[in-house]
Amino acid sequence: MEFTAAQIAELIQGVVVGNPEEKINNVSKIEEGKPGTISFLANPKYERYLYSTASSVVIVNNSFEPSQKISSTLIKVPDAYVAIASLLNMYEQSQPTKSGIESPSFIDTSSKYGDFVYIGAFAYIGENVTIGNNVKIYPQVYIGDGVSIGDNTIIYAGVKIYKGCKIGCECIIHAGAVIGSDGFGFAPDETNNFKKIAQIGNVVVEDQVEIGANTTIDRATMGSTRIKKGAKIDNLIQLAHNVEVGNNTVIAAQTGIAGSSKIGNYCMIGGQVGIAGHLTIADNVKMAAQTGVSKNITQKGSVLMGSPAFEAMSFNKAYTIFRKLPDIYQQINRIEKELKK
Amino acid sequence: MEFTAAQIAELIQGVVVGNPEEKINNVSKIEEGKPGTISFLANPKYERYLYSTASSVVIVNNSFEPSQKISSTLIKVPDAYVAIASLLNMYEQSQPTKSGIESPSFIDTSSKYGDFVYIGAFAYIGENVTIGNNVKIYPQVYIGDGVSIGDNTIIYAGVKIYKGCKIGCECIIHAGAVIGSDGFGFAPDETNNFKKIAQIGNVVVEDQVEIGANTTIDRATMGSTRIKKGAKIDNLIQLAHNVEVGNNTVIAAQTGIAGSSKIGNYCMIGGQVGIAGHLTIADNVKMAAQTGVSKNITQKGSVLMGSPAFEAMSFNKAYTIFRKLPDIYQQINRIEKELKK
Amino acid sequence: MEFTAAQIAELIQGVVVGNPEEKINNVSKIEEGKPGTISFLANPKYERYLYSTASSVVIVNNSFEPSQKISSTLIKVPDAYVAIASLLNMYEQSQPTKSGIESPSFIDTSSKYGDFVYIGAFAYIGENVTIGNNVKIYPQVYIGDGVSIGDNTIIYAGVKIYKGCKIGCECIIHAGAVIGSDGFGFAPDETNNFKKIAQIGNVVVEDQVEIGANTTIDRATMGSTRIKKGAKIDNLIQLAHNVEVGNNTVIAAQTGIAGSSKIGNYCMIGGQVGIAGHLTIADNVKMAAQTGVSKNITQKGSVLMGSPAFEAMSFNKAYTIFRKLPDIYQQINRIEKELKK
Repeated sequence: MEFTAAQIAELIQGVVVGNPEEKINNVSKIEEGKPGTISFLANPKYERYLYSTASSVVIVNNSFEPSQKISSTLIKVPDAYVAIASLLNMYEQSQPTKSGIESPSFIDTSSKYGDFVYIGAFAYIGENVTIGNNVKIYPQVYIGDGVSIGDNTIIYAGVKIYKGCKIGCECIIHAGAVIGSDGFGFAPDETNNFKKIAQIGNVVVEDQVEIGANTTIDRATMGSTRIKKGAKIDNLIQLAHNVEVGNNTVIAAQTGIAGSSKIGNYCMIGGQVGIAGHLTIADNVKMAAQTGVSKNITQKGSVLMGSPAFEAMSFNKAYTIFRKLPDIYQQINRIEKELKK
Repeated sequence: MEFTAAQIAELIQGVVVGNPEEKINNVSKIEEGKPGTISFLANPKYERYLYSTASSVVIVNNSFEPSQKISSTLIKVPDAYVAIASLLNMYEQSQPTKSGIESPSFIDTSSKYGDFVYIGAFAYIGENVTIGNNVKIYPQVYIGDGVSIGDNTIIYAGVKIYKGCKIGCECIIHAGAVIGSDGFGFAPDETNNFKKIAQIGNVVVEDQVEIGANTTIDRATMGSTRIKKGAKIDNLIQLAHNVEVGNNTVIAAQTGIAGSSKIGNYCMIGGQVGIAGHLTIADNVKMAAQTGVSKNITQKGSVLMGSPAFEAMSFNKAYTIFRKLPDIYQQINRIEKELKK
Repeated sequence: MEFTAAQIAELIQGVVVGNPEEKINNVSKIEEGKPGTISFLANPKYERYLYSTASSVVIVNNSFEPSQKISSTLIKVPDAYVAIASLLNMYEQSQPTKSGIESPSFIDTSSKYGDFVYIGAFAYIGENVTIGNNVKIYPQVYIGDGVSIGDNTIIYAGVKIYKGCKIGCECIIHAGAVIGSDGFGFAPDETNNFKKIAQIGNVVVEDQVEIGANTTIDRATMGSTRIKKGAKIDNLIQLAHNVEVGNNTVIAAQTGIAGSSKIGNYCMIGGQVGIAGHLTIADNVKMAAQTGVSKNITQKGSVLMGSPAFEAMSFNKAYTIFRKLPDIYQQINRIEKELKK
C-alpha cells in the first residue's frame, strides 16, 4: 500500500511542511531512513539524523525548531511519538490475522470456546476450560484443566498455563511464558531433607495485561498470585508464589520478585531488579535496573537504586565517592602522616 | 468436601481451642481469610492478622500466646508450618491425576515405559528411551533419544530433554525447562572466528530433585553436569556445562552458575546470584540474593553477600559506611582544611 | 569404536610419548579419568590431576614439562585444547543424525524446504516459509509466516520463531528460545493507562550464530533487531527491540540488553550483565559478570566492571578500599579526635 504525506497527515491530524504528494509505503527508523519511508523524531538525542536521513517524510513535534536544512517533507503533530504509535497500530491492524481451528489440536469435549477463536495446531486444551470470543491460541500452547481465558486475549506459541489459572480479557501472553507453575516451597523434614509443600492456589491475570516471552509466574501456595489490570510484564521475569503486581505497573526484563511481595500501582521497575519476599512496595515507585530491594518501601513515588537499595539520588552521590575511594584513602593516610608529624 | 475442626485436628495431631464442630471446606492465607476456611500462623510478622481474620479455624504453634481476643477456633500443634504443609499435601493428593496415553503422541517403538504412566498429547519420545512406573509426561514434552526417567517423576508441559540425559525417581520438572542443551564452548580459529566445541556429555538429575519453569541446564562437554539427590532448583536458573549441585542444595530463581563449578551439599543460594566458572563451594554455604561469587569458598557454612562477594556481615558493615560516603568525604576535607590551618 | 593412541595421534597430528598401542574408546575429563579413556590438560590449574588420573591417554601441550611421574601415555600437540576440541567434533560428526519428515507435523502448502531436511513431529511451519538444505527442525518448533531459514541450520525442540524473522545459514538455536516476540513498547494514553505500540519490525539472525536455550530476542518496533555473523548468545539472555549484536561477539548467560543498544564486534560480555537502552558499545569491549552499563562505551577494548560500570581496574581498586571502609571510618574518626586535642 502506498500513501501520500497528505493522506498520512490526515490520519494523524498533522500539518505537512514540504511536498504533500511525497509517496511512502513503509516505516523506518530515522537513522536507517530510506526513500519511500516515513520516520519520526521525538527524542532530541536523534535530532542529528534528521538532517541526513533519506526518509521521504518525517513526523516531528509542533514545538520542534530545526537548526539546519532538512530535505525530507515534515508532518508536524502535537506529539510525534503518539502519532507514529498510532500509525504503527493502523499498519498492524491492516495485517491478516489467524482464525479457525487447525488440525491436529486437542480440545477436551468438556471445554467451551467463544466465537471467532483461533486455535493453532498442536494446541492442548484440557478439561472444563472456558475460552472467550476472539481469543487467539497459537500452536503448541498448553491450557490446563479448569483455566478460563477472557475475550480478545492472544496467547502466542508454546505458552503453558497450569490448571485453575484465570486469564482476563485483552491480554497478550508471549511465546514460552509459563503461568501457574508450583511456587518454590519446601520445609526440612526430620532427616533434614527438603519436603515439598503442595501449592494449591492459582494465578489470576486481570484484563489488559501483557506478559513477555519465557516469563514465569508461579501459582500461589494458597489463594492467588495476582497481576492486576493493565500491568506490563517483560520477558524472562520471575514472579513467585502469592506475588501481587499493581494496576498499570511496568516491569522490565529479567526482574525477579520473591514470594508474597505486593507491588503497588503505576510502579516502574527496571530490568534485572530483585525484590525480596514478603515486602510491600508503595504506588508509583521507580527502581533503576539491577536494584536489589530488601525492605518495605512505604513512600509513594520513591526512586531506588543499589543493592541493597536506597534512594537513587543518595546512591548516586555515594557511588560518585566510591569511584574516588583509592584517592580518598591516600588522602586520609597523608593526613594521618601529617598529623603524626 | 467439608471437615470439622475436630477432624482436622485429628489429621494433624493438634488440640482444638474453641468450637470443635466449626466447619471448613477450603484453605486460605490468614490475611485473606474467609468464613469456612482454615488458615495458619507461623511467622510472627503475620500475628496482627490473627485478631481480625475471618477464617473459621487457624492453626497456631503450641508456644503461641495471643495478645488480644481471637474469634477464630484455634488448632494448636507443635509446628504450624509443618501442619499446614501436611494438610496442603493431603488436599493435593485427594485431587484427580492424569493417566493413560493421549493421542496424538509420538513414541518411538524402541522406547519402553512402565505401568500407570501418563503421556500427554503432542509429547515426543525418541529412540531407546526408558520411562519408569507412574511417570507423568505432560503434553508437548520432548524426550530425546536414549533418555531414561525414573519412577514417579512428573514432567510438566513443554519440558525439553536432550538426548542421553538421565532423570532420577520422584523428580518434578516444571514447564519449559530445558535439560541437556549444549554447553557454551567456543575456541577462536586461525581467522579469529569462534568455532564450536562439540558437547558430547550429558546431564544427570538424581532422585527427588525439583527443577523450576524455564530453567536451563546444559550438558557437559565431556562427562556429566550433575544435580544431586534432593536439590531444589527454582525458575529461570542457568546451570552451565559440567556444573555439579550438591545434595539438598536449594537455589532460588534466576541464579546462574558458570561452567565446571561444584556447589556443596545443603547450600542455600538466593535469587539472581552469579557464580563464576571452575569454582568449588563448600557445604552449607549461604548466599544472599544478587551475590556475585568469583573465588572458591572453602569455609563450610560461610554466608556471602556483595559482588564480588565476601562475608555477609563484613559486607553489611562496609555498605553501611558506603551509604554515608558523601558525609564522610566532607568530614575528610574538613579535617584536611583544619590541619592546613 | 576403539582407537589406539597412535591412531589418535595421527588424527590430531601429535606425537606419542608412552605406549602407542594404548587403547581408548571414550573421552573423559582428566579429574574423572578412567582406563580406556582419553583426557586433555590445557589449563595449568588442572596439572595436579595428571599425576593421579586413571585416563589411559592424555593430550598435553608440546611446551608442557611434567614435574612428577606420569603413568598415562601422552600425546603432545601444539595446542591441547584445540586438539581435544577437534577430537570431540570428530566424535560428534560420527553420531547418527535425524532426517526426514515425521508425522504428524504441520507444514503449510505455501512453504518450501530444501533437500535433506529433518522436520520433527509436532513442528509447525506457517505460510510462505522458506527452509534451506540440510536444515534440522526438531519436534514442537514453531515457525511463523514468512520466516526464512538458511542452509545447515539446526533448530532444537520447542523453539518459537515469530512471523517475518530471518535466520541465516549454519546457525544453531537451542530449545525454548523465542525469536521475534514483541518489543516492550507502551505509551501512556489520556487516562494514564499504557497503550501498546505495535511492533512491526522483525529479527535478523545472520550466519553462524548460536543462540542458547530459552533466550528471548524481541522483534524491532520498526526495522530489525540484528544478531550479526558469528555472534554466540548463551542461555536465558534478553535482547530487546532494535538491539544489534556485532560480529563474533560472545554473550554469557542471563545478560540483558535494553532497546536500541548497539554492541560492537568481538565483544566479550559476561553473565548477568545489564546494558541500558539506546547505547553504543565499541568493538572488543569486555564486561565482567553482573556489570551494569548505563553510558556509551566509545573506547575500543575497554574492560568494564561494576554497576554502574566503569573501568575494571579502577573498579577493583575502589572495591578493595570499599571492603576496608569500616576500618577506614574508624581511622578518620581517630584522626578527627586527635586533631581536636
